[in-house]
Amino acid sequence: MESEGLVRDLTAEISKRMQRSRTPIPIGVSNRHAHITQGHFEAVFGPGAKFSKFRDLSQPGQFAANEKIDIAGSKGTVRGVRLLGPFRQKTQVEVSLTDAIALGARPPVRESGDLAGSAPLKISGPCGAVDVQEGLILAQRHLHCSTAEAAAIGVANGEAVRVRVGRGGCRETVFEKTVVRVSDKFSLELHLDTDEANAAGVKTGDSAYIA
Amino acid sequence: MESEGLVRDLTAEISKRMQRSRTPIPIGVSNRHAHITQGHFEAVFGPGAKFSKFRDLSQPGQFAANEKIDIAGSKGTVRGVRLLGPFRQKTQVEVSLTDAIALGARPPVRESGDLAGSAPLKISGPCGAVDVQEGLILAQRHLHCSTAEAAAIGVANGEAVRVRVGRGGCRETVFEKTVVRVSDKFSLELHLDTDEANAAGVKTGDSAYIA
Repeated sequence: MESEGLVRDLTAEISKRMQRSRTPIPIGVSNRHAHITQGHFEAVFGPGAKFSKFRDLSQPGQFAANEKIDIAGSKGTVRGVRLLGPFRQKTQVEVSLTDAIALGARPPVRESGDLAGSAPLKISGPCGAVDVQEGLILAQRHLHCSTAEAAAIGVANGEAVRVRVGRGGCRETVFEKTVVRVSDKFSLELHLDTDEANAAGVKTGDSAYIA
Repeated sequence: MESEGLVRDLTAEISKRMQRSRTPIPIGVSNRHAHITQGHFEAVFGPGAKFSKFRDLSQPGQFAANEKIDIAGSKGTVRGVRLLGPFRQKTQVEVSLTDAIALGARPPVRESGDLAGSAPLKISGPCGAVDVQEGLILAQRHLHCSTAEAAAIGVANGEAVRVRVGRGGCRETVFEKTVVRVSDKFSLELHLDTDEANAAGVKTGDSAYIA
């Protein structure tokens, strides 16, 4: 009787997971980019400077700007880092660990907005440079979705899920600890940085599956 | 009765996997590097030029040379690519996909030595440059081990295994399709490229586990 109960429970759990794992989740690969305060923006692009929009992003209200900055660490510089708008309350620069090693920086892995104690960097543009005391991070891999999408897939805000990418390819990979972020300002997308995407041989628009 | 048999089989399989997954496997992160023919070496370093050894590598007989070359694709150049010795029958340059994108190249994922139809590149050094028709690859992630180590862990040459890295960290990752390469010229080591290592937040000397 005990064995039969175990088999029934296992079967139910596996069935639920198989169901969930059938939903393809679009991958969005985030190249290095920066969110910036209006103050820092004007410091590097000049007083009164404004964003000009390059294109809308998949997350509603967010856009890529035409403006780019250079970022520097103790060892090197990465040029032409795309700014994303709108302005934020704190400047946040997201790079890959490959970039961080080139910069000579040791940024922590963080969720967006969690900047206390993150790494310092220098940002510069055509009209000036600013030493930013904290703001350089590696992005914690995460899954955006709306409230309705979260309900349909069976995930909750803040939950960590395992995500399979590159299914069937020779670099197939399972990313553990992918944080789910639910908001009606979001649409369904798995955000990976370039190291993660390249390690798994995937690109924007490819599909991921909760494992 | 059927359920009991299933439970017994599952329990045995899980037990075997738990046993195997307890062996820590040292990770070796391969930065971009090149194996080179004597002909290409002399073409870029001059007639009669010889390797000078920088340091021995973990795999017996292999060494890193002091000499470095530049490699170029259609879009960019990566400078200072370390040469490994001894000389090979074919020039083989291994880069990360991050590097390949910077070069403007589309190398396939390959095992070492499998170069037919791989990507072209230009190599150059202080005394000249050579257009190499094929030889640029992304390395298929792989696990080196000796015959005795393979027997102890329970893996066979050519087998593909799942390997867990960064266990307990915020970038924990499972790499599928990690090819086992058994030879008494090898010692136990998981070889990842920099994209894979950085995606998982691991470095040379950290431990991996067969999953």
